[in-house]
Amino acid sequence: MISHPAYDAGRWQLVENRLDLGVLPQSESLFALGNGHLGWRGTLDEGEPHGIPGSYLGGVHEELPLPVRESGYGDPECAETLVNVVNGKLLRLFVDDEPFDVRLGTLHHHRRWLDLRRGLLHRSTDWTSPAGSRVVVRSTRLVSLTQRALAAVAYEVEAVHRETQVAVQSELVANEPLPAPDPHDPRAPQHLDRPLEPVEHAADGGRLRLLHRTRRSGLLVAAAAGHRVSGPKGCSVHGGAEEDVARCTVVARLGSGRRLRIVKTVAYAWSGMRSAASLRDEAEAALAAGQHTGWQGLAEEQRRYLDAFWARADVELEGDEEIQHAVRFGLFHLLQAAARAEEQPIGAKGLTGPGYGGHCFWDTEAFVLPVLTYTAPEAAAASLRWRHRTLDRALERAKQLQLRGAAFPWRTISGRECSAYWPAGTAAFHVNAAVADAAVRYAQVTGDAGFERAAGVELLTHVARLWMALGHHGRDGAFHIDGVTGPDEYSAVADDNTYTNLMAQANLRAAALAVRRYPAEAAALGADEAERRAWLTAADRMAVPYNAELGVHEQSAGFTRHAPWDFAATGPDGYPLMLHHPYFDLYRSQVVKQADLVLALFLRDSAFTPQQKARDFAYYEPITVRDSSLSACVQSVVAADVGHLDLAFDYLGESAEMDLEDLQHNTRDGLHLAALAGVWLALVAGFGGLRRHGGHLAFAPRLPASLTRLAYHVTAFQRRLRIEATPREATYTLLSGPRLEIRHYGHPLTLERGVPRVRAIPPLRPRHPPAQPPGRAPRRKEP
Amino acid sequence: MISHPAYDAGRWQLVENRLDLGVLPQSESLFALGNGHLGWRGTLDEGEPHGIPGSYLGGVHEELPLPVRESGYGDPECAETLVNVVNGKLLRLFVDDEPFDVRLGTLHHHRRWLDLRRGLLHRSTDWTSPAGSRVVVRSTRLVSLTQRALAAVAYEVEAVHRETQVAVQSELVANEPLPAPDPHDPRAPQHLDRPLEPVEHAADGGRLRLLHRTRRSGLLVAAAAGHRVSGPKGCSVHGGAEEDVARCTVVARLGSGRRLRIVKTVAYAWSGMRSAASLRDEAEAALAAGQHTGWQGLAEEQRRYLDAFWARADVELEGDEEIQHAVRFGLFHLLQAAARAEEQPIGAKGLTGPGYGGHCFWDTEAFVLPVLTYTAPEAAAASLRWRHRTLDRALERAKQLQLRGAAFPWRTISGRECSAYWPAGTAAFHVNAAVADAAVRYAQVTGDAGFERAAGVELLTHVARLWMALGHHGRDGAFHIDGVTGPDEYSAVADDNTYTNLMAQANLRAAALAVRRYPAEAAALGADEAERRAWLTAADRMAVPYNAELGVHEQSAGFTRHAPWDFAATGPDGYPLMLHHPYFDLYRSQVVKQADLVLALFLRDSAFTPQQKARDFAYYEPITVRDSSLSACVQSVVAADVGHLDLAFDYLGESAEMDLEDLQHNTRDGLHLAALAGVWLALVAGFGGLRRHGGHLAFAPRLPASLTRLAYHVTAFQRRLRIEATPREATYTLLSGPRLEIRHYGHPLTLERGVPRVRAIPPLRPRHPPAQPPGRAPRRKEP
Repeated sequence: MISHPAYDAGRWQLVENRLDLGVLPQSESLFALGNGHLGWRGTLDEGEPHGIPGSYLGGVHEELPLPVRESGYGDPECAETLVNVVNGKLLRLFVDDEPFDVRLGTLHHHRRWLDLRRGLLHRSTDWTSPAGSRVVVRSTRLVSLTQRALAAVAYEVEAVHRETQVAVQSELVANEPLPAPDPHDPRAPQHLDRPLEPVEHAADGGRLRLLHRTRRSGLLVAAAAGHRVSGPKGCSVHGGAEEDVARCTVVARLGSGRRLRIVKTVAYAWSGMRSAASLRDEAEAALAAGQHTGWQGLAEEQRRYLDAFWARADVELEGDEEIQHAVRFGLFHLLQAAARAEEQPIGAKGLTGPGYGGHCFWDTEAFVLPVLTYTAPEAAAASLRWRHRTLDRALERAKQLQLRGAAFPWRTISGRECSAYWPAGTAAFHVNAAVADAAVRYAQVTGDAGFERAAGVELLTHVARLWMALGHHGRDGAFHIDGVTGPDEYSAVADDNTYTNLMAQANLRAAALAVRRYPAEAAALGADEAERRAWLTAADRMAVPYNAELGVHEQSAGFTRHAPWDFAATGPDGYPLMLHHPYFDLYRSQVVKQADLVLALFLRDSAFTPQQKARDFAYYEPITVRDSSLSACVQSVVAADVGHLDLAFDYLGESAEMDLEDLQHNTRDGLHLAALAGVWLALVAGFGGLRRHGGHLAFAPRLPASLTRLAYHVTAFQRRLRIEATPREATYTLLSGPRLEIRHYGHPLTLERGVPRVRAIPPLRPRHPPAQPPGRAPRRKEP
Repeated sequence: MISHPAYDAGRWQLVENRLDLGVLPQSESLFALGNGHLGWRGTLDEGEPHGIPGSYLGGVHEELPLPVRESGYGDPECAETLVNVVNGKLLRLFVDDEPFDVRLGTLHHHRRWLDLRRGLLHRSTDWTSPAGSRVVVRSTRLVSLTQRALAAVAYEVEAVHRETQVAVQSELVANEPLPAPDPHDPRAPQHLDRPLEPVEHAADGGRLRLLHRTRRSGLLVAAAAGHRVSGPKGCSVHGGAEEDVARCTVVARLGSGRRLRIVKTVAYAWSGMRSAASLRDEAEAALAAGQHTGWQGLAEEQRRYLDAFWARADVELEGDEEIQHAVRFGLFHLLQAAARAEEQPIGAKGLTGPGYGGHCFWDTEAFVLPVLTYTAPEAAAASLRWRHRTLDRALERAKQLQLRGAAFPWRTISGRECSAYWPAGTAAFHVNAAVADAAVRYAQVTGDAGFERAAGVELLTHVARLWMALGHHGRDGAFHIDGVTGPDEYSAVADDNTYTNLMAQANLRAAALAVRRYPAEAAALGADEAERRAWLTAADRMAVPYNAELGVHEQSAGFTRHAPWDFAATGPDGYPLMLHHPYFDLYRSQVVKQADLVLALFLRDSAFTPQQKARDFAYYEPITVRDSSLSACVQSVVAADVGHLDLAFDYLGESAEMDLEDLQHNTRDGLHLAALAGVWLALVAGFGGLRRHGGHLAFAPRLPASLTRLAYHVTAFQRRLRIEATPREATYTLLSGPRLEIRHYGHPLTLERGVPRVRAIPPLRPRHPPAQPPGRAPRRKEP
């Protein structure tokens, strides 16, 4: 189980058994609630103590200038960062004449638990004030998955052993001070000082409202709150507001064993376009709707929504409780990040914290969307529509870079490039491959022709044009894409990155298919037969660097000729390498931060023979240090594919522990969504062996020794399937939809609805797994 | 002649015939005076109008923070920038009740001329005020080459046609406002806002003093001024001082034809170590010494100093007056930048302007020191001693970068790395090659064993260790230096840059020789026989990328495989490319900013056969755009070497015009010292054919059609030589020192003092010169 004594993981819940202030910021991330539109970090109700306060609205960002010193042409001049908007969570409590603060007095009991089936965060606290007044505080918090503007808190305080006067100040607070970031960690968030300009404030009894505007980006943000109070007679409710705080104060005198209960409903609205008056109305309307539904109604909607999700998405397993918990925890947070993001980006941390400035990277398309495509396809579609909506900026960026087609940004909120370091930003053109590939995957798996026609063909055409502009036909007859950066951030600006080239090859072929399938749309885009043929020629001639002497593919041209990294001289404190070594030293050495060539073995698996995959995996394992949270899950999938099942299981364990064990030491800044997605990928694509081959779902499940059963659900081709694997056999069940042909270890198998089909899993010849760099092997996963 | 009508170049002077406010900032650079310790830009005496005010003391810098956003390990956190210190040039004139300002009233005549033989800047102005008072102002300014702390101005005002009251305010001014730089040009200087904190100010009649401290770097700067006034009776002198200004006001009533003459002597002192009291005394003492010498005495000392210099250094030629002027203008400014720099850096712009922050780059060792070594060896030695003095910082930097040996900074004032963009900064390790090579050249040419023992062997050992740490022995048996940046800034972070590798090879061999020659020093450095052998092995196995198919050397591994640059799509407004194209696009294309492989053909000429040189030059010419001022001169030298004499002459012309024609559009920010040195290099190493081969001076002179005679002087092996070439023959004369063996076209020739030896120049088979990129051919030089 999770090693930190504060946490405890059940099959359907994450529990915090005691309050450890050392892990408070991590808890705030783990217990964050959200729906993709609105995110509340898991701060204590009373606001203090806290790690990093955080309330976010997807897309609400502030601009900040980038330094121009020694800038180059095309460097972005301005970046964006997610704004901590109005905090609506706060309910400050005074017990008799003292503030309720768990650092003072005596904390008899503290427990919080996140219920993954109900989508509720519960808290229960038993506390005696320094002056001896004892209260029990219980709260339940939700961010609604059904009414996207809404969050609510049911808050209850009970006097335990004597008559106690309690005062609750339920607040909306803007411009909270934030802790200073670590200037030496490039991953650390950059906090803004007072990003919100006050526009309007109002309070009327229990109804509160604040309206602010971000200073540079000029986005209006409205927050409204309403309160339903039930308590003893004589309980008073007063409202008041100033520029940055609106407050509803409830005072009650509680006899021993009596309770005060407050249901606080909070609604948000924001826009960069609409007026203050319309936003104020929007927030008030959402609040009215939420209060009409009521606490009980919101909780019931939430449960129904999640029941439907788990029926589509659940992964069950036997043999490891921690992994069982982790995959559900991960799916829950992916849903929270994406469910209602709609036409806003899904950031690398979702809305769980300020890390990476709230930016969306390729992680979303390459790691998160594969999961959503099979489990919550409408959320995947919305995310792809967001990308498509930013196409104008990507076209403009490509033009600025003297390219053709679309160049999507390495990191962004609004669609513009926000990367200040181009060798690991702009040059990482593979983000475009991920976008195109996600669009192809989504369209193929869902059969959503409307999306393909309205967005897919356009995305694919522009990405294909980008590759044509980036690459060139060399004297050797091959098509080369030079000077780009692949997924491995310990190499950069290299020629013919194999992952990038193979993904570009797939993009070009998909684009060629798409323009043939949608000729009218293609014509409107000016994509003619000559262009289509040029794409196919480039794809066919794509350079794939291979070192014949070693018999392995090169991560990029010349990579295997580079000096080996001196692992012997790198102690355990030397990781992550990027915080201890300059980039130039990493770039010129054979050391890999994260799966790059190995990611190609997964995503372009049909481009390699099984023997090549095994050899390549064996070559890259001993030089891959996994200083990125994106790596372990990919290594798990490929290890499973090439037959190193125990190693795959260890990597799965590492992915599962990423945030629960804070392996990257920055869970405080938010959860690693891609790693959470990785748990699903390792189980479903790894041990579950799910692939798409020739338009079919193909399965090749095989369990590691530690698992006795794995069952998962996928939604594809408008059907729902359940796949269950035991050590010896696999059972395929079509839960809904018409007959479907699939593949089991390459053999066709036709499924009829409701009729389980059982197939034997072929035996595996055990082989010796490759070693990792000294000290960098994944922890042996003990189930 | 120079195309701008304001300028006129004589054989020994640069003349400004009329005042064109459009080229005022350029004039300030061209007419800058300095001695390497102190630099005064050629601002008008009265301070306004001005382009960029500038008074500099070599080494007086301020620190400024570098952005940390997305920084990497080892990025410098702080940069340095040359400070505009106290302006001592100012003499503001009031004529009757109006300020003398050439933009008002009527300017009848304006002339300034820089006398290269005397080291004086003269000015003569005839002006009528708006109210009709006419005055002639004459001034002569010098920055002393013999008393390094001193500058002086002899200022004279004459009433022309009626009695006129004149007031002269002679000032010391600190914290002058500076114009805002262009944020889009990375070469533009970054100005500081009020970098000087006042410490002390004083005035006593004609004696003025200001003492300031730089805010962050904490350097104390003292300036003192004294005045000798001669004028009509009743002329009054008053002094006054405030924090940032000290002023001596002289008022006189001049009858028609009468003059007021003021000799202002200004002395500076600075230190980061010593006290305010001692600095105050130092400035006062320097001032007293200067006043004791007197104006006439200073001017005479200056003349004697320059006579000696020109006797050692002059280059005479027949056939092109403009080149004749340019080479003297260049030598004069090199001397001004270096003569008394002593243990401070020689910046890329000397002390002529704020460009590049006043930083010293590899230009100094690779371009400036070769000239100084043969013409002002004591200045070359001082500059190398400055580098050696920064060795501790270079050792520390190497350690920080996890390397061994010394890693000298790409750009610096105090010795610390100030480059904010590592791919074109830290990764350009070839700066270390330039340092080592300059030390070897200096020691070999001067025979200065004291330097070699005290500094040379240590520099060489640490640079050799750096190469050993940077490189590795590959599976192919070769020694590779991967992921570094060569001179061409349109490529970066490439493997086996040929220039770098060949220079490293030479460094390693020189280091091996040095430790054998100085065994005690080597032992103290821990350099044993095993290490020495390792250096020689690495040197012998050094990788030199060669494309056998094309029969040319590669600038770096894989370079010739890259896509060609689309020159057809690049219009004349598209240059310099770096201001119109992102680096990634330049880096992955076959386009060269500045001589890189071609520089290796010059500096490592014996590593190539004549045929290889010709082929390589022919390959790189059509892809070299010369967006750097460092390129034309190198191309000139190599063009001459491979027999394209007219092309070499055109490139010489471009080097000569760099600042006089403002070819880079930034002469306003200071002169391009390396290009000025390049004129000498193109004449002496190019047409003069000077090389060092096997410890001998080797000559292979050959003139282009436009020149009928070229004569130059070099100082080497404690001897002075004169080499004179005509189209058919070369004459070698040993002017001082004992018998010397040289080479003429490879044949030994022994010179006895005072006995000219004449040798025929072998005929050249004419061949067709290579083309340059469209629109990028050097302007045809019309003599």
